[in-house]
Amino acid sequence: MTEALAAPLSDADATIQSMPDASPAKWHLAHTTWFFETFLLRDHLDGYRLHDAAWPFLFNSYYEAEGPRHTRASRGLLSRPTLDEVRDYRARVDAAMDALLDRPELAPLIELGLAHEQQHQELLLTDMKHAFAHNPLGPVYAPGPPGNGAGPRAAGWRDHPGGIVEIGHRGPGFAFDNEGPRHRVLIEPFALADRLVTNREWAQFAEEGGYRAATLWLSDGWTWVQQECRKAPLYWRDGEEFTLGGWRERDPDAPVAHISYYEADAFATWAGARLPTEHEWETMAANEDSSAGNQLDGAGAAHPSGSAGLFGDCWQWTRSAYLPYPRFRPADGAVGEYNGKFMSGQFVLKGASCATPRGHARASYRNFFYPHQRWQFTGLRLAKDL
Amino acid sequence: MTEALAAPLSDADATIQSMPDASPAKWHLAHTTWFFETFLLRDHLDGYRLHDAAWPFLFNSYYEAEGPRHTRASRGLLSRPTLDEVRDYRARVDAAMDALLDRPELAPLIELGLAHEQQHQELLLTDMKHAFAHNPLGPVYAPGPPGNGAGPRAAGWRDHPGGIVEIGHRGPGFAFDNEGPRHRVLIEPFALADRLVTNREWAQFAEEGGYRAATLWLSDGWTWVQQECRKAPLYWRDGEEFTLGGWRERDPDAPVAHISYYEADAFATWAGARLPTEHEWETMAANEDSSAGNQLDGAGAAHPSGSAGLFGDCWQWTRSAYLPYPRFRPADGAVGEYNGKFMSGQFVLKGASCATPRGHARASYRNFFYPHQRWQFTGLRLAKDL
Amino acid sequence: MTEALAAPLSDADATIQSMPDASPAKWHLAHTTWFFETFLLRDHLDGYRLHDAAWPFLFNSYYEAEGPRHTRASRGLLSRPTLDEVRDYRARVDAAMDALLDRPELAPLIELGLAHEQQHQELLLTDMKHAFAHNPLGPVYAPGPPGNGAGPRAAGWRDHPGGIVEIGHRGPGFAFDNEGPRHRVLIEPFALADRLVTNREWAQFAEEGGYRAATLWLSDGWTWVQQECRKAPLYWRDGEEFTLGGWRERDPDAPVAHISYYEADAFATWAGARLPTEHEWETMAANEDSSAGNQLDGAGAAHPSGSAGLFGDCWQWTRSAYLPYPRFRPADGAVGEYNGKFMSGQFVLKGASCATPRGHARASYRNFFYPHQRWQFTGLRLAKDL
Amino acid sequence: MTEALAAPLSDADATIQSMPDASPAKWHLAHTTWFFETFLLRDHLDGYRLHDAAWPFLFNSYYEAEGPRHTRASRGLLSRPTLDEVRDYRARVDAAMDALLDRPELAPLIELGLAHEQQHQELLLTDMKHAFAHNPLGPVYAPGPPGNGAGPRAAGWRDHPGGIVEIGHRGPGFAFDNEGPRHRVLIEPFALADRLVTNREWAQFAEEGGYRAATLWLSDGWTWVQQECRKAPLYWRDGEEFTLGGWRERDPDAPVAHISYYEADAFATWAGARLPTEHEWETMAANEDSSAGNQLDGAGAAHPSGSAGLFGDCWQWTRSAYLPYPRFRPADGAVGEYNGKFMSGQFVLKGASCATPRGHARASYRNFFYPHQRWQFTGLRLAKDL
Repeated sequence: MTEALAAPLSDADATIQSMPDASPAKWHLAHTTWFFETFLLRDHLDGYRLHDAAWPFLFNSYYEAEGPRHTRASRGLLSRPTLDEVRDYRARVDAAMDALLDRPELAPLIELGLAHEQQHQELLLTDMKHAFAHNPLGPVYAPGPPGNGAGPRAAGWRDHPGGIVEIGHRGPGFAFDNEGPRHRVLIEPFALADRLVTNREWAQFAEEGGYRAATLWLSDGWTWVQQECRKAPLYWRDGEEFTLGGWRERDPDAPVAHISYYEADAFATWAGARLPTEHEWETMAANEDSSAGNQLDGAGAAHPSGSAGLFGDCWQWTRSAYLPYPRFRPADGAVGEYNGKFMSGQFVLKGASCATPRGHARASYRNFFYPHQRWQFTGLRLAKDL
Repeated sequence: MTEALAAPLSDADATIQSMPDASPAKWHLAHTTWFFETFLLRDHLDGYRLHDAAWPFLFNSYYEAEGPRHTRASRGLLSRPTLDEVRDYRARVDAAMDALLDRPELAPLIELGLAHEQQHQELLLTDMKHAFAHNPLGPVYAPGPPGNGAGPRAAGWRDHPGGIVEIGHRGPGFAFDNEGPRHRVLIEPFALADRLVTNREWAQFAEEGGYRAATLWLSDGWTWVQQECRKAPLYWRDGEEFTLGGWRERDPDAPVAHISYYEADAFATWAGARLPTEHEWETMAANEDSSAGNQLDGAGAAHPSGSAGLFGDCWQWTRSAYLPYPRFRPADGAVGEYNGKFMSGQFVLKGASCATPRGHARASYRNFFYPHQRWQFTGLRLAKDL
Repeated sequence: MTEALAAPLSDADATIQSMPDASPAKWHLAHTTWFFETFLLRDHLDGYRLHDAAWPFLFNSYYEAEGPRHTRASRGLLSRPTLDEVRDYRARVDAAMDALLDRPELAPLIELGLAHEQQHQELLLTDMKHAFAHNPLGPVYAPGPPGNGAGPRAAGWRDHPGGIVEIGHRGPGFAFDNEGPRHRVLIEPFALADRLVTNREWAQFAEEGGYRAATLWLSDGWTWVQQECRKAPLYWRDGEEFTLGGWRERDPDAPVAHISYYEADAFATWAGARLPTEHEWETMAANEDSSAGNQLDGAGAAHPSGSAGLFGDCWQWTRSAYLPYPRFRPADGAVGEYNGKFMSGQFVLKGASCATPRGHARASYRNFFYPHQRWQFTGLRLAKDL
Repeated sequence: MTEALAAPLSDADATIQSMPDASPAKWHLAHTTWFFETFLLRDHLDGYRLHDAAWPFLFNSYYEAEGPRHTRASRGLLSRPTLDEVRDYRARVDAAMDALLDRPELAPLIELGLAHEQQHQELLLTDMKHAFAHNPLGPVYAPGPPGNGAGPRAAGWRDHPGGIVEIGHRGPGFAFDNEGPRHRVLIEPFALADRLVTNREWAQFAEEGGYRAATLWLSDGWTWVQQECRKAPLYWRDGEEFTLGGWRERDPDAPVAHISYYEADAFATWAGARLPTEHEWETMAANEDSSAGNQLDGAGAAHPSGSAGLFGDCWQWTRSAYLPYPRFRPADGAVGEYNGKFMSGQFVLKGASCATPRGHARASYRNFFYPHQRWQFTGLRLAKDL
């Protein structure tokens, strides 16, 4: 699957890195395999020898317990190993993993490795989109499906009476540690919009001076707008937007994507609404099919409008800071660094995007990014008090 | 009162600014008066003429609705107006305020102005401490009281059974808009320490490698430790600490102060505990006398140990991000910028410090700073799950 | 004399620092006295005790051989010692110097200390001008003389036939080490303008797009123009300029001042001319009275036009990099750091400005600044090949 | 020739950029061809159509007269066009050039294009070396020749009596505009070392505290040493150095390379000598065979010791700032930006390095770099006064 996503890429495409937040496609391929090699094969397969003793230094992302590692901002200098060498690495590690698949005590770790790889599938696509967007030639990753031209659809509200709700992963099935423990939360009555905010609505916000009206913005957001001279979502250019299929005419009725938390918050204020909390969103999504909606099915397509439910098209900013749930404890060992140590300064996003592998998301899933970041498929769904 | 705090300062002392986060003492004196002149006299007193038409540009802090203003980082260049001219400004505005004191519809705004001035009294002291600490001569603001030499006191735990609690200001009396609306929150059973963490405990944390153990730290915190080469709280130097009374031997049993959120969180992890949430803290403090404890009584003294209750000595970091309460709405007009626009990226602190004017704090009070900041009297009180 | 320059300043005025390149007035007063205390009293007067053992750390500028010192960018935080304490320091050191004045072997070092103090007299004025210019109130240092309203004067050329000339200080009298050794240089025939470029000419350059025409500029200069958004000399604002007498209407026929090397070079290119070399300028000046022209006589006045000779009004950028003369050797000991170690990256300026103490300048004098700097009274005089 | 230098590189190798000063190999290949396409084919061949109208934006380096261009620091994001597409571009432009080769009026421009390409051959090697050095795997560009193991050779001095000498290109043959006009210069008696400073000597300088002795350094150099924590030449690691053949044991008797001007100057001071001026060097080299010595012959080899003359192994820092010769005029049109606009802030280097195409150098050649730069093969030869 990950290999399929890399299929349209040359060795050079897979090597470049457009900013420190992004990683080369080749690095994603190698890092996800390093995860299996390190935490499964090295730690649990007797006699396993590392594919190359110098590579863990290159492909460890942020696991302090695994020792020093290559500077994140320099990942784009690794023209070696080649893409083919990385593919060979993946094949060898995959083959070695066979010996561990029937050991039930390792199943949780293997599931974590698979979920981890799915996350990097999405990152591979968003990082590649970012890199190609910085090439004035505007390369095409893959020709995307056309917009569905469904035309505008009026937004409605779905009400919730509030009260005590249960939050967090209940099982069965895999979940990340940050989705638990499941616990009760008291929420107030609210309503959640039944669709995402669209490009058409965003264009109106921009045209009516949204990016120039200081009082709509959080203080940090206004600083960001001014320092970065923001006037539109990332990847907008006149009436076009950059997609994995290159520069395209913008579909006004598709969900707006690639916006920061600051932008999402300012838009909601302008619209007389607010962002939902993560609890509100999760409660509404509890009975939904998280694998419906416009998600990744091989192509990493641009997002036509039309996801009827809460999942798909874009990750949705919530007004909840990314913090530990009551009684949260990170896992022991290096994999305990997976989620817990990022619990400051970031906001939770819910849902799933057009680049999320179908089946990866669920209602309790907690994605998180810094409020200024927007290279992911990030959008918003309005909420209001009742 | 504010004038009394400035009494030990020369015109030059009151002019300097040691970092963009801090402001000159003179600026604090003028800004708090600008607040009254602008939102009371200018807006509500017929025929009032500004003291000096050029000064609002200098002394507006961050009110976008009030137009452009002097660059924050350049406040330390204002050798003019002189300290005496600012004192004269204060006297004239105070006198003019007389005409408004009996207008009941203005009482809330006047109360806000007074509370605002109290906040700047604390900032005047912490900013002056920061400035003097950067002078190699280590000037003395005011000779402080001696430490009480009470010796170590073992920490105990106060338990809470959890359940639905009420959070936020209930009244009567003044509160900032961010303390409401009052609402219900469901919390889990927990325990809160009955005293603050001390210098002695912190020294042990440092000696046992707390600042070198990556896995104790949040990811952003570890980056901060490394980039800034942190090894101790702000103002520590060998066995001494810098105080408003100059360099002093450090009292091991006084509460540790001037630590960042990152440090507080790492310490709590090291200690096998955690920081409290703002709801937990507020619930425990609901029936306490918020004006007890070691707070400001004229001298802005360094903090001897010994506050028996939850208030005093240090503002206490919580693990709660500073976010709006349900149904929160900022006030209309420029004063609506007072609190709401800062609701991203910061953490809530509870309590009161040795530099907080007595009577200013209350259980529902929500102080907030960025996680790296530590020039305030910031400390910590541990919590744990039950 | 230096005290007289500080007379119009308050303690606060004398404390502030508007950028790392500039120093507080109080610091200039103390540093020049530190020079005498250190290199004369401490090193040569038996039994001399330092006025305050903590002060050399504060007032050493850049003498590595004298050990560590206070960070340059933090000089503006020194509200203590006070201005009066510094004046007392000066009086005591001056008094102690009496015992050394009749020791002939110390005469060169005393002369160096006096010349050093004259340099800081000029810096005190230019630094204070910079600081006041950053105060939106535009304080007045001293009411300056009016412009002379002489009206435009056409520029003429003075020719030189080229050949072998002698360059460098010949004596008698004091000179800095970088003015020697005197040596021969072969120059080509050239002409030098008989007056400085004026504000009127500069305004024409700006109006005709000088700041937007990339091909007029050195590559580093064009980067500077774009990054800093330069459109005019420092201190220009509409038809006004900031002076030590505050904001004034700009005299179109006064010499343009406060320009960078990059601007001077671009202007010369635009004018079909070039900047002179330091050798050309010195040769032309060899027989001039270096104490004529508009220089400092107590007031540090703004520059009216009218210096008939080569000295006065503005230091003049040359196209000569500041490099050692053949066989140049810095003096032994710490004072050897005075000039030699700055011989990279800077350009030579010749002449004297309206802030240079009369008698301080001479034809062989080599002033030097980085090409982007412009807070000194820097102007230009055109040259051309014959 | 240039293609041969790129032969060992993959598409990914040829795409990466390790710092803004360096460019990708692919970019060098395309840029040198863009030079021919733009200034020859487009401007002088009737009916010529650009290979791709979008490419000039990508491959213009710094010619302002040719309009806007791709950001220099983003050259490493151009995974497209591919290396093969660039090779095809080169072949097509080469073929089209046939039609212009017999037009004598174009010969100077064609010679300039060829010399330009030779410069980029050297840059391709030094930039690739820099990129590979930043890959922890230390890739090998090409296995280099072994050091010659000649052992130490004592340095001697060659004297010059001084006097009036002629400087600058005399012809016949090609020269860059900055090598003229030829003119007379008066120089003092001096001596020049008969070989380059070696690794052995440099190691002694470092071991004896050269990098810690502030008084050896120019002020800007000392700032550079401290901010960058410099302790050795670029590419040194314990007893090894990074070469185009990967990490190798360092030959103590090979010339030291990859040093900054600041380091060269400090070494010379430490050695009781100085750097030569460009005039001194050129005068000594006037009768030498500039194509002798260790230069590029296909392999871009690491530098064994042993060049008997002044050319080869390393470019040699002089103490001459890179400034215009008397009566220098840049060429008309865009190619006038080739050299003249860089005449501030840089120092002249003379000679030729092991990566310079044989035949490219000559006595009057003026190479130039900023004093902190050291990714070129830069070394030093001592001089002294007589």
